[in-house]
Amino acid sequence: MRVAVIGLGLIGGSLALAVPGTRGFDHDEAARRIARSRGVDVADDVSSAVRGADIVVAAVPPDGVAATFTAAARLAPSAVLTDVASSKRDLEGFAASLPPGAHVVGSHPLAGSTGRGVEAAAADLFRGRAWAIVPTSRSDTDSVRAVGELARSAGARPIVLSQQRHEALMTWLVRAPLAVSSALAWSASIESPEGLTELAGPGFRDATRLATTPAALAEELLFGADRERLAVVLRVIAGTLTDWADEIVRDDLPPVRAELAAARDMRAQLDRASEDSSAK
Amino acid sequence: MRVAVIGLGLIGGSLALAVPGTRGFDHDEAARRIARSRGVDVADDVSSAVRGADIVVAAVPPDGVAATFTAAARLAPSAVLTDVASSKRDLEGFAASLPPGAHVVGSHPLAGSTGRGVEAAAADLFRGRAWAIVPTSRSDTDSVRAVGELARSAGARPIVLSQQRHEALMTWLVRAPLAVSSALAWSASIESPEGLTELAGPGFRDATRLATTPAALAEELLFGADRERLAVVLRVIAGTLTDWADEIVRDDLPPVRAELAAARDMRAQLDRASEDSSAK
Repeated sequence: MRVAVIGLGLIGGSLALAVPGTRGFDHDEAARRIARSRGVDVADDVSSAVRGADIVVAAVPPDGVAATFTAAARLAPSAVLTDVASSKRDLEGFAASLPPGAHVVGSHPLAGSTGRGVEAAAADLFRGRAWAIVPTSRSDTDSVRAVGELARSAGARPIVLSQQRHEALMTWLVRAPLAVSSALAWSASIESPEGLTELAGPGFRDATRLATTPAALAEELLFGADRERLAVVLRVIAGTLTDWADEIVRDDLPPVRAELAAARDMRAQLDRASEDSSAK
Repeated sequence: MRVAVIGLGLIGGSLALAVPGTRGFDHDEAARRIARSRGVDVADDVSSAVRGADIVVAAVPPDGVAATFTAAARLAPSAVLTDVASSKRDLEGFAASLPPGAHVVGSHPLAGSTGRGVEAAAADLFRGRAWAIVPTSRSDTDSVRAVGELARSAGARPIVLSQQRHEALMTWLVRAPLAVSSALAWSASIESPEGLTELAGPGFRDATRLATTPAALAEELLFGADRERLAVVLRVIAGTLTDWADEIVRDDLPPVRAELAAARDMRAQLDRASEDSSAK
């Protein structure tokens, strides 16, 4: 499987390091130079990276995916095209605009790091992490299978999801936790600060860690696509908190107790799932 | 400073291991045996542990503190009495009921572990952690200073707070994060589970980690003392989430943006504070 990666940032660079035989390209000369110094096979232009590839990965910012797909579909008409964006909302539109015969499958590797750029890239970035595969109207069994193979070559666990399901899960697992964590930190910041930072322990720190998400990423996640869905989820969580406040004050504890138990079970399942996947 | 620790569980056992010259006692014979095998100087009864002590630490469950203080005040009338409970709401009542001349100062070491009992005790449990000191009407400068010295001997950072301030901070830093984390996990558990555990990454895991708090502790924190204060804080956080939902949907982003920035600053201060304290 010949893989071409366009965009050698953290994700693209890591993919090029993780999957043997990958050819990479980046429009930024410095990124190409650093990638080369790290052992990546870097082409000097898009067409020499893409020509002859079986899979082309557009590891570029969301607003560059459509242009990368258009170029790749022209240069390698039989290649499977995939992206790495965390939102799949616009993917179907890009896919449908390509010439007939183009194969497009969405990828969302759930991996990241606090570092940025190819300097922070690492061959093990995807190891044991989930890799969501989101088929489009331009996907078929072979193209979905090829992207699954790419994910596994990088050490990730491929999971095929519909676009709707992927957006719903991202709202629950990424956008809502960011909002909840930030709302807790913001609300606590109104409180008088005396003793607050001194007494904050690991519980408060973990619960508010996502509040440190850089502004640009936080705004992309909260103010980007699908605001209505996010709002519904935030209102559900807010409703749970006000219900608990009311029930605790009027000493109606059985519902809170039952919901705390369900929360504990849900979270224990997560820990079991991660033990299972690390044991594999 | 001669220290007596009554109750050799996780906290009492760790204190006995951390502070040289401590004598310990536990009503449970097995706990005494294990503590001895770990090198603690363990007395065979309360009176030989307490007699001659300068400080007596009641490291027992909250409902055993009053009885331990009463016994200690009789056996060592000039000793400073302190506890380790996370709520200081009932402490003033216990203190006031003791004979005149008894010295009582509240202690809340902010340290813990997922382990239980003296088996999980560790000499470094308190190292670098905060230790709240809450004076009562039965505290004076010397007794507060003695408890500060105890905290420092254990490797902790003593912080003196009023009982009111201590309860307010515990609500923001311990009780509310537990509720918020559980409300997120519970709300997500209503969602269809397909793909949820597979796609959950470190962000969602951190934000929901407190939902794994054991039921008995979670109920003590949420259904115990000062329910009104907790309810107010939960309603503030819920209100923030619903405001953000409304503002995001109607594209009124400046207030959300400003509050996200304040949350980020607040959380960054925490990280700076912990770097400062670990650098010491």
